[in-house]
Amino acid sequence: MSDTLEKLAAVIDARKAADPGSSYVAGLFDKGMNSILKKIGEEAAETIVAAKEPDDEQLVHETADLWFHTLVMLAARGLGPEAVLAELERRFGTSGIEEKAARGK
Amino acid sequence: MSDTLEKLAAVIDARKAADPGSSYVAGLFDKGMNSILKKIGEEAAETIVAAKEPDDEQLVHETADLWFHTLVMLAARGLGPEAVLAELERRFGTSGIEEKAARGK
Amino acid sequence: MSDTLEKLAAVIDARKAADPGSSYVAGLFDKGMNSILKKIGEEAAETIVAAKEPDDEQLVHETADLWFHTLVMLAARGLGPEAVLAELERRFGTSGIEEKAARGK
Amino acid sequence: MSDTLEKLAAVIDARKAADPGSSYVAGLFDKGMNSILKKIGEEAAETIVAAKEPDDEQLVHETADLWFHTLVMLAARGLGPEAVLAELERRFGTSGIEEKAARGK
Repeated sequence: MSDTLEKLAAVIDARKAADPGSSYVAGLFDKGMNSILKKIGEEAAETIVAAKEPDDEQLVHETADLWFHTLVMLAARGLGPEAVLAELERRFGTSGIEEKAARGK
Repeated sequence: MSDTLEKLAAVIDARKAADPGSSYVAGLFDKGMNSILKKIGEEAAETIVAAKEPDDEQLVHETADLWFHTLVMLAARGLGPEAVLAELERRFGTSGIEEKAARGK
Repeated sequence: MSDTLEKLAAVIDARKAADPGSSYVAGLFDKGMNSILKKIGEEAAETIVAAKEPDDEQLVHETADLWFHTLVMLAARGLGPEAVLAELERRFGTSGIEEKAARGK
Repeated sequence: MSDTLEKLAAVIDARKAADPGSSYVAGLFDKGMNSILKKIGEEAAETIVAAKEPDDEQLVHETADLWFHTLVMLAARGLGPEAVLAELERRFGTSGIEEKAARGK
């Protein structure tokens, strides 16, 4: 599943031109960035709540929801997960740079 | 960079046994889950703010911070990105299942 | 309107014993704390988004939603706005204590 | 303590013209709205976490922090708590308007 995020981003991108009523993601794109950001706040809260509960499956479920909606946000800006993964790779790359310094400013 | 999250998770996991003063992540693990969750709230807010600004690089930077801290949260629970990616794969798999239904409950 | 929060809290409290279908707040109490907290995350995100937009009325509207749901959260714990106002009063009271120190730990 | 929020807002407003180094709030105003919004995300997360813990005092403390930073946000926009209280009053006023409808759109 090493390219899951990229495949998922391709699915999300394909919804940008779709009829708003045809799918959840197409509807989100139609409602616009503010609606997508509202969902990110909601999913972040649900992830935090799930992390305070013992159910691992629920925590994975909510984290997936959070990551998913950040991919929708990136797509709304014409960006994909590659840019985020490259940024993480840059910080924690093979260079052996100290992690703390690598966290950026 | 297809396995960036997994490699990053391994780096994070290795910090769990480290001296709290030795790195940012080791310090976060030592402070505990509530401190990690506070960071997730902070990074989610910074991602939302960045999505309202025109700078793509900043948005990628903040999204990377958000994903990074969710990986720390998962690691604190003994979980890794594979579980989240598997959940996303399950929802948007090759089966062609309708995306809307696939979002789960 | 100096006692608005207290009056509002009384209205909210009265919903705790009501039929879940009888009002929005009664329904929230019935769904439980996790659902209330999800709303707080959503309203915090909407407040942040509104603060990045020029419409003052919308910002006031979203802040009112955020405060309202924190009152519901407090009520679900048997607490009211008096406790929060007393805490703020304590920090910024007539004593002239330096604001920075008064923010607490 | 019926006018605590108004008194607190006056204290906050007085910090807008102060030297950034002279107080926490003066420093926040100097850093700007994005820094204030980051704090709102952080305090919202801490409130959510506190609501999942049994300590009432901690929940009151975190809610006070959240309200406080929304007052700083309002002040940065030239707004005060009166506008938010008037909005809440309007929704839940003496008119007996059904609460659910009164929540606005």
